[in-house]
Amino acid sequence: MPRQRVLSGMRPTGALHLGHYHGALKNWVRLQSSYDCFFFVADWHALTTQYQDSSNRNSIERNVYDMVVDWLAAGIDPEQATLFIQSRMPEHAELFTLLAMSTPSSWLERIPSYKDQVDKNRELATYGFLGYPLLQAADILIYKAAFVPVGEDQTAHVEVTREVARRFNRIYSPDKAILPEPLELLTDKPRLSGLDGQKMSKSYGNAIAMRDAPEVVEQKIRTMPTDPQRVRRGDAGEPSRCPVWPLHQVYSTPDLLEWAGQGCRSAGIGCLDCKQPLIEAIQKEQAPWRERANEYLANPKQVQWIVEVGTERARAVARKTLREVRAAIGLTY
Amino acid sequence: MPRQRVLSGMRPTGALHLGHYHGALKNWVRLQSSYDCFFFVADWHALTTQYQDSSNRNSIERNVYDMVVDWLAAGIDPEQATLFIQSRMPEHAELFTLLAMSTPSSWLERIPSYKDQVDKNRELATYGFLGYPLLQAADILIYKAAFVPVGEDQTAHVEVTREVARRFNRIYSPDKAILPEPLELLTDKPRLSGLDGQKMSKSYGNAIAMRDAPEVVEQKIRTMPTDPQRVRRGDAGEPSRCPVWPLHQVYSTPDLLEWAGQGCRSAGIGCLDCKQPLIEAIQKEQAPWRERANEYLANPKQVQWIVEVGTERARAVARKTLREVRAAIGLTY
Ligand code: SF4
Ligand code: SF4
Repeated sequence: MPRQRVLSGMRPTGALHLGHYHGALKNWVRLQSSYDCFFFVADWHALTTQYQDSSNRNSIERNVYDMVVDWLAAGIDPEQATLFIQSRMPEHAELFTLLAMSTPSSWLERIPSYKDQVDKNRELATYGFLGYPLLQAADILIYKAAFVPVGEDQTAHVEVTREVARRFNRIYSPDKAILPEPLELLTDKPRLSGLDGQKMSKSYGNAIAMRDAPEVVEQKIRTMPTDPQRVRRGDAGEPSRCPVWPLHQVYSTPDLLEWAGQGCRSAGIGCLDCKQPLIEAIQKEQAPWRERANEYLANPKQVQWIVEVGTERARAVARKTLREVRAAIGLTY
Repeated sequence: MPRQRVLSGMRPTGALHLGHYHGALKNWVRLQSSYDCFFFVADWHALTTQYQDSSNRNSIERNVYDMVVDWLAAGIDPEQATLFIQSRMPEHAELFTLLAMSTPSSWLERIPSYKDQVDKNRELATYGFLGYPLLQAADILIYKAAFVPVGEDQTAHVEVTREVARRFNRIYSPDKAILPEPLELLTDKPRLSGLDGQKMSKSYGNAIAMRDAPEVVEQKIRTMPTDPQRVRRGDAGEPSRCPVWPLHQVYSTPDLLEWAGQGCRSAGIGCLDCKQPLIEAIQKEQAPWRERANEYLANPKQVQWIVEVGTERARAVARKTLREVRAAIGLTY
């Protein structure tokens, strides 16, 4: 039995950090052995919100390849998963254009995140940003994906994709559905906190990159702020007030958490004692990534080749769907 | 000096009638020797309003080729003009998608015809119908057309195309405009009236097809209603009340008009006398069309080949523009 297809994309943000890994990439690595995974660089999606940003323009190619290297470093296996770039697939744009004809604009206007974001930033009141969920629907439907891994907050987008597919099928091919309705693959996407306790994000400057060197990791963790009420070594602390603690919860065993929590509250350990096992856990997690990344970085042509092969593999599937879609509409000449 | 480019499209309505000829095609024939004309079958445009119409779906291929045969019959010269099919150009969809990112949706919402049509027909409240002027902008800009032949009522669409181009250039390539702003080529598009005095239209059943046989033309004109107050041969008539008269005004010389007008008002001629020179004028106009059409109909492969060559010629231009557009945005990998 052929594996069911999963589709997921990531905007090209450049080198990834631990938040990306724990929030998405780790899940991708898990999925690739059970599903026929299509993972893509969502560079058109990035344009829907960043079209004004000219600094982005000069770095986008680099951002794409840095990100793909991190996918591979994390353990995405190009023999198992298909990796490709959205902007290399005019097929997505064609399906987007065709689906537009039968999709009520009200379906797009009523997506909660749309109004919120436009109200906050008028630059987003574009036709492209409004159509973003439809472009995403095209991304998904063109591969007839069975599942789309999403967090709780993104189920509205997959729901619209199903509605778009259903309406297309009803209008153009009532006897035999052409575009299968995808299901959510609900995954908890833990929000990793950064060096300051906020959500880890490159733009907040509080991130640990997947490929940060061991010394850099050590330095970043050692200089992290801790419980502000633990001023001196002798003061007892409270982990729930400390930005180090959420990282501990991700990286440490129950035993270690027990030791650190008790040591903190009793002033039995210093903050550097507490941080040391965390530093080591992150460094240990990174070691295989670094090894794989170095191989790919020594051979950038190989990365390009992986993307090239993935793009052509995806294109073959996309073209097949488009042929069916065009035939259903009557555009067969 | 290379000829400046003109772009114009027509929805695939099947075999054309005299209204199409006098309203658009005659002008195309005139333009082709002075401009580098790109004429296309706007089948995606047709979908923006007819996506629900399944009868259309089965006949669309035939409609496309019947129409192209009539273009050629009218004297469009495939050596001079480039003929192609919109739906064969995913490049248009890609540019449409990219332009969407920087185009405010308010520009599309405020086009007068949009609100009117949606208010009349809620089925048109789709994302695709809203984006129709942007798709048209992509059609025009991808060929860097200098001119777009339009009637007075369509200048708003060309205006939006200019705004879309200007904004794209300003955001992505402020130092050197990539997408030239097209100008309207204002042409009067006479509304030919049909057999009942209404606007000639296939759906009203009042049309004379370009390829109607001479006997059919004779029959249609002879049975046309005339001035309702001219009941008997001896009654004087009034041309301004007669549906035959507007056709006379298109087809007859001033002398002939003088003769018919006077003969009508004085009951000096009968209605069949009046209609006879009109019948002959239309038959004479049609003769070379029929001749050319018969050649093409005897050789349908040749028509397909003309479209094939035109489509590939258009694609070469479209791809060049897309490369520049992608480079300006930063999508060069
Ligand atoms: S001991 Fe650990 S948990 Fe407590 S304040 Fe220091 S770093 Fe934070
Ligand atoms: S004579 Fe000519 S213009 Fe007058 S009513 Fe008859 S057809 Fe019409």
